[in-house]
Amino acid sequence: MQVGQRVEDLPTPAFTVDLDVVKKNAQEMVQRFRALGVNMRPHMKTHKTLEGGDLMTGGSRRRIVVSTLAEARFFADGGFDDILYAYPLPFDKVGECAALAERLESFHVLVDSHEALTLLKRRPLPGGKRWKVWLKIDCENGRAGLRHTDPAALKLARAIAEEPTELAGVYAHCGNSYHCQGVPEIQSVARATTERVLEFMQKLQEEGVPCPVASIGSTPSCSHPVPEMAALHEVHPGNYIFYDVQQMGIGSCQLKDVAVRVLTRVIGHYPHRNQLLVDCGWTGLSLHSLGQLPTGFALVEGHPNLKLVGMTQEHGRIELVTGELDWAQFPLGSLLALIPYHACATAAMHPAYYVHVKGQVVATWKPVRGW
Amino acid sequence: MQVGQRVEDLPTPAFTVDLDVVKKNAQEMVQRFRALGVNMRPHMKTHKTLEGGDLMTGGSRRRIVVSTLAEARFFADGGFDDILYAYPLPFDKVGECAALAERLESFHVLVDSHEALTLLKRRPLPGGKRWKVWLKIDCENGRAGLRHTDPAALKLARAIAEEPTELAGVYAHCGNSYHCQGVPEIQSVARATTERVLEFMQKLQEEGVPCPVASIGSTPSCSHPVPEMAALHEVHPGNYIFYDVQQMGIGSCQLKDVAVRVLTRVIGHYPHRNQLLVDCGWTGLSLHSLGQLPTGFALVEGHPNLKLVGMTQEHGRIELVTGELDWAQFPLGSLLALIPYHACATAAMHPAYYVHVKGQVVATWKPVRGW
Repeated sequence: MQVGQRVEDLPTPAFTVDLDVVKKNAQEMVQRFRALGVNMRPHMKTHKTLEGGDLMTGGSRRRIVVSTLAEARFFADGGFDDILYAYPLPFDKVGECAALAERLESFHVLVDSHEALTLLKRRPLPGGKRWKVWLKIDCENGRAGLRHTDPAALKLARAIAEEPTELAGVYAHCGNSYHCQGVPEIQSVARATTERVLEFMQKLQEEGVPCPVASIGSTPSCSHPVPEMAALHEVHPGNYIFYDVQQMGIGSCQLKDVAVRVLTRVIGHYPHRNQLLVDCGWTGLSLHSLGQLPTGFALVEGHPNLKLVGMTQEHGRIELVTGELDWAQFPLGSLLALIPYHACATAAMHPAYYVHVKGQVVATWKPVRGW
Repeated sequence: MQVGQRVEDLPTPAFTVDLDVVKKNAQEMVQRFRALGVNMRPHMKTHKTLEGGDLMTGGSRRRIVVSTLAEARFFADGGFDDILYAYPLPFDKVGECAALAERLESFHVLVDSHEALTLLKRRPLPGGKRWKVWLKIDCENGRAGLRHTDPAALKLARAIAEEPTELAGVYAHCGNSYHCQGVPEIQSVARATTERVLEFMQKLQEEGVPCPVASIGSTPSCSHPVPEMAALHEVHPGNYIFYDVQQMGIGSCQLKDVAVRVLTRVIGHYPHRNQLLVDCGWTGLSLHSLGQLPTGFALVEGHPNLKLVGMTQEHGRIELVTGELDWAQFPLGSLLALIPYHACATAAMHPAYYVHVKGQVVATWKPVRGW
């Protein structure tokens, strides 16, 4: 047990979470949308921990999004409810979804096809309980969802609204905000997505299809909401609990907002090739960023001239961006803190997170994994 | 519990292991080096399971390599012994290494610096037991190790050989074989690495430094050994238990030798962009290959014209390499088998492996993770 230790004494590689920053990130997002009069339905996929979910829901443990059924079961077991499995309903998982829908007060599923809806229709829930089904629409993101302009989307919404299913909401992920650089671009995507979803809601109303909730989400758009988003009912960002270098590059946050690090130690000096070796490979960081940052696969905290040029399973190779290494500055055994490019991906590599306040470990959080 | 199920009924994404192929891969490697009179010390890092270790050691559970202390503890707990922690000794882990060295008949560590050796010298083992220390040398691979031509390597070897440590072996990883294409290139690296290590052993002998073992390893070089390798004492490949698309590209193996798949289901049809969505993202496959294969991030078994063009956390996007999709061929819910680019990386994403014989699940293997 590492509680009470200093983070610098942790065995490496270690995934650390700054609790003060996480709390600030969670609270700011809550306040931001409270001010707009919009409910939060935070996404659990980044951290996958009960403790993180508790902070993101302000302790209510209600109204969350998950990306896997393993998360759904885990959070349900942990006392969470009103859980949206925001994933195109996989055909092999209808039975498990039915079990969760029976067990929880509100378990929501999502579809973007008549075929998936048909599976639900064929499996009515006991006791006359209706399936809460969300329609996924694609507002120019280009992943899942029927296109917001596609007449098939309206038709599917109408079919969802018929018993034994009900249309619980319309869901759009503005993942295209990940291509933005800077707040104006982010807000342009946020505004466009909001308008498209609201237009779709308007059409539903005109068609007489009841739908209580319009929800959009992505950490960039929800970090810099536009006033138009006040007309939505919910937002569902997730990554903001940790933030990361990718979000910094997009303009969602600043370095001070990034709550997570991978601590690593220097394990080798190779002066003939001007390289350090550290004890963090892709099992500790993931290959996200694909090495495309000016500093390679991550930022090295406090050392803007260090570049993580490559990783194998348990080794990371660090060079200087320019110049020659001052070896005395990085003795064998010394600690470096990597700031992850993609916190979701890095967190997924770690069986435990070391949660600290001002460098003192106060808890270990254990994420769920698998499907 | 999935034992007895058909693999096609498994919940997806699912990491499957063909037991017949794994057994064949393990046995062929054993036979290959028995014929050369060289001991196997297989690396556990790819599968990280007791069952895989059992097969690779021919049931002896002796003489293995691990890449993390978590693996060392796991295999020790599972009855394995003669374990080499083939990793530049991390300064924070000397105490744990001492505990393993006391507990096991043979626990070996590895160094490539005087600083690391000094830590061992300062912590003698109880009862006069000597630390078994391997010297890592770099034979043009360019990761860890002192260069084979560096006089500092000989000097360090001499220092290791003095009590309370002993020089248990010389270790070289021919990771540069991963840049090869085809057997002649692989064998050229295997031969060069072997010659460099044997030259180094010769120098040790001339200097009167006793060293019982010279070991090289990498799956490419050990899949196509050269006769010169008969002069080595050990080899330590690891990936060959599974093999993968990367190894196919190098020339280590053929498709029939790749034991692992990630099963995934079609969850979306998007004809307007000629794309399928499947329920395997980077949490199920990893981002290895960086999408650089002609078929993107993986091969899709039986469908050479499918390309996994991108992944997010739980979604994979599949297009055709050329032409237009025949949607009827890939109905929603239908199964595809992804052949991983890098089996070590893909295995690391899965809490359980579904082991099958001719498509019927016969066991689930649970790998260790963490550090």
